[in-house]
Amino acid sequence: MSYKLKQLAELLGVKVHGDEEVVIKSVAPVDKATEGDISFVSSAKYLQGLRNTSASAVIVKPSMLEDTKVAALVVENPRATYARVVSLLYPQHLPEAGIHASASIDLTAQVAVSASIGANVVIEANAEIADDVIIEAGCVIGRNSKIGKSTHLYPNVTVYYDCIIGEQCILHSSSVVGSDGFGFEFDKTEWLKIAQVGGVRIGDKVEIGACSVVDRGALNDTVIEEGVKLDNHVQIAHNVHVGAHTVMSRGVGVAGSSKIGKNCIIGGMAGIRDNIEITDNVIITAMTIVSKSLRQPGSYSSTTPIDDTKSWRKNSVRFRQLDDMAKRIRLLEKQIENKG
Amino acid sequence: MSYKLKQLAELLGVKVHGDEEVVIKSVAPVDKATEGDISFVSSAKYLQGLRNTSASAVIVKPSMLEDTKVAALVVENPRATYARVVSLLYPQHLPEAGIHASASIDLTAQVAVSASIGANVVIEANAEIADDVIIEAGCVIGRNSKIGKSTHLYPNVTVYYDCIIGEQCILHSSSVVGSDGFGFEFDKTEWLKIAQVGGVRIGDKVEIGACSVVDRGALNDTVIEEGVKLDNHVQIAHNVHVGAHTVMSRGVGVAGSSKIGKNCIIGGMAGIRDNIEITDNVIITAMTIVSKSLRQPGSYSSTTPIDDTKSWRKNSVRFRQLDDMAKRIRLLEKQIENKG
Amino acid sequence: MSYKLKQLAELLGVKVHGDEEVVIKSVAPVDKATEGDISFVSSAKYLQGLRNTSASAVIVKPSMLEDTKVAALVVENPRATYARVVSLLYPQHLPEAGIHASASIDLTAQVAVSASIGANVVIEANAEIADDVIIEAGCVIGRNSKIGKSTHLYPNVTVYYDCIIGEQCILHSSSVVGSDGFGFEFDKTEWLKIAQVGGVRIGDKVEIGACSVVDRGALNDTVIEEGVKLDNHVQIAHNVHVGAHTVMSRGVGVAGSSKIGKNCIIGGMAGIRDNIEITDNVIITAMTIVSKSLRQPGSYSSTTPIDDTKSWRKNSVRFRQLDDMAKRIRLLEKQIENKG
Repeated sequence: MSYKLKQLAELLGVKVHGDEEVVIKSVAPVDKATEGDISFVSSAKYLQGLRNTSASAVIVKPSMLEDTKVAALVVENPRATYARVVSLLYPQHLPEAGIHASASIDLTAQVAVSASIGANVVIEANAEIADDVIIEAGCVIGRNSKIGKSTHLYPNVTVYYDCIIGEQCILHSSSVVGSDGFGFEFDKTEWLKIAQVGGVRIGDKVEIGACSVVDRGALNDTVIEEGVKLDNHVQIAHNVHVGAHTVMSRGVGVAGSSKIGKNCIIGGMAGIRDNIEITDNVIITAMTIVSKSLRQPGSYSSTTPIDDTKSWRKNSVRFRQLDDMAKRIRLLEKQIENKG
Repeated sequence: MSYKLKQLAELLGVKVHGDEEVVIKSVAPVDKATEGDISFVSSAKYLQGLRNTSASAVIVKPSMLEDTKVAALVVENPRATYARVVSLLYPQHLPEAGIHASASIDLTAQVAVSASIGANVVIEANAEIADDVIIEAGCVIGRNSKIGKSTHLYPNVTVYYDCIIGEQCILHSSSVVGSDGFGFEFDKTEWLKIAQVGGVRIGDKVEIGACSVVDRGALNDTVIEEGVKLDNHVQIAHNVHVGAHTVMSRGVGVAGSSKIGKNCIIGGMAGIRDNIEITDNVIITAMTIVSKSLRQPGSYSSTTPIDDTKSWRKNSVRFRQLDDMAKRIRLLEKQIENKG
Repeated sequence: MSYKLKQLAELLGVKVHGDEEVVIKSVAPVDKATEGDISFVSSAKYLQGLRNTSASAVIVKPSMLEDTKVAALVVENPRATYARVVSLLYPQHLPEAGIHASASIDLTAQVAVSASIGANVVIEANAEIADDVIIEAGCVIGRNSKIGKSTHLYPNVTVYYDCIIGEQCILHSSSVVGSDGFGFEFDKTEWLKIAQVGGVRIGDKVEIGACSVVDRGALNDTVIEEGVKLDNHVQIAHNVHVGAHTVMSRGVGVAGSSKIGKNCIIGGMAGIRDNIEITDNVIITAMTIVSKSLRQPGSYSSTTPIDDTKSWRKNSVRFRQLDDMAKRIRLLEKQIENKG
């Protein structure tokens, strides 16, 4: 695809600075861009690159115009405009509407005419597939589950029964929605399974990464609100509630019945214990263990710093003496004080 | 489904207190239950809720009867009885016996007449599928593998060749049994693969979560004993042995050749190194790294506590000075002593 | 399979010591081996076992011959020779060439005659499947993707569009190559998706474990060089570059745009932050968080040591006082000095 800069500006409703006839075919970083490329600069540290760029156009903030020698789209959030430009220049290839001959669709399931159902897809009884949904090869949609308008399931996704997925969602391959929560009760000699009879409700515009899992509720539903983005290998346990527009990086685990607020950012491989409450606008850094509720917005961390293994070993063994060290410091302080 | 309380009592072999004719249709928490609901109370902290409940019936311990104003099932372990009541009130919908037309079953495979084989299931040569097994859509069962009676595989599970899975097991979607252990030997310039020629043996009543992986053994089998429950994203490496009735929460990783005892409880995202032995009845808290064998029952932990990121940063950098701090404390003690 | 020792020696191009006519049928550890077994000894701590072994033959270093009473293959790296012997004695069962009747192959895809395409495999437009490739049941290969010669995909693997996988690679079940990188920009009220228009390039002899994920690049490709071995549940984020012959144990996560050198060994469940550079020949121990670039070869760690939970709790709370403790030590030192 290629656009004149003025066409991009019109499609996006933004202002042009300079030559609006320049032709844009691709995106590239400001320091590597050449003719036909558009770049974006969102921070002052790339101003030098901006001044020297060979891009045909750039996306910049108004304050950057004096450092801009080439044509430009002038916006408040260059990266957001960049995101929209990428989608225009590199339109996604979407499969055609229709049902592949090898798909197995229960007679009681409802599949919109505009939906695209890939090879070997299985859609069970009473499931509902809305308009413009794309379900790629090998996906399985369980009984009574509903997939909202324009949602896209990549190949080999499994959605269990009684799960509701919103509109414009994206589920990546090998992800699973609706598997049993981990609920057992030890009874004399063995673990008795507690049937997980709740479902899953996922809002609009939610993205779920490859190999991520959202368990069904024990009794009530597991809930993910709109706009939530989950990276790969994320786990949402039974009866968890994730607030709108919260993002979780790769490998995050949220244990049972915890409630995460809106607009939180959870770093990769962080673990959140069960029955925790996290308020809105909380940031958790990578690999942190959240073992208590967080009622104030802000950034939280645990973990220890990386070191060469030899030094680390020497310091790490002292961790077991920390309480002793603290007490000895207190004792020294008293001794000094007494001698004062 | 609905039952009179006396019917539930008979089916479960437990005692009724109060009106045994009351009709039970559903379960609910003691403080939210209304007519038709049954609730359970297993700890004293819910006694207030018990006194005020609007449930039609409750499941309680004998000692709680004086706080019980409604009909009751009286048992030693209310939560276990609750688990059984849930299964009665919410019976699982099971697919019918028979083989879906789209399944690919090798002529040498044996599939019981009472088994249910879903769409696109693949069963390879000499595999054996026992009575009442349910294999849902998209599962693949490799050569010579055996699936025991009444075991249930949800969609898109893969079982490699030469794996034996017991009776009444549950395997969730995207889980994998029998993939190669991670065995390589560096030879001059590259890693040489060590063929993994062992298999996997899984006992009865084992549950394996979504996206969990049990690798095949290098030479001998990887073994999971009966009653083990693995949550999602769990990894059991080659030649690991997991003792009966041990449970592992989400994301636990057990590295090669480690041996875990019976009745252990391993918290989420804990990591167990290779060639470790953990005795019976060990509890590991979440995100702990087990870097040595644990020969005494008890609870074990590592990790550091969560803090606001600013405070954490200040304290965390000191971790690298711990050994130095310990030595300086010792020196101070000597100096004080000398001055004594 | 069985071989005379001299046949093994010839096939492997190594020296025999002792009875070269002895028949070898299987491998076993040196202390458990019996007639027909071959064992290997690579370290001095097994010399006692070597002296007493009942194996028909052993694989040893030249320096071990005086402790060797049975026939032997004499080599510099016994474990590497062992790896080759295992492959000879336990040849892999490979499916036959040809395309299963239930596979869905686009008319524009190219599939080599010698390739084996399993049941329900889906190969999309313009994909290329080279000679001797094995693609097992339920795999999906996206548009324009290429699978190199002799590469083996186990069941239910998903390869998205525009991904290039080298020769002699192995991809285990439920693994995913080419899913979208985790790229979003917050725009006023919600996260805007940044289309991920790069691809994935994977070199020769790469192994990717079960449930592992390699995301496609945002703009340029995600790259994994030849000989890299990834265990299960590993995540390679968008635009990561992994150098040749690096191995990552189970659960490692590498965040976006990080660059890992050649011949690195990354321990299980370690996390590597985004935009990090790790030089060649770096070892990271298990569960370490790599939060800064590592420019010197060597071994690195973070984490804290395991302890009984009661002791751990006592010490762990002191972590929040570390900075305070350090300052108090400094103050004590000054006080002592002043009194000096």
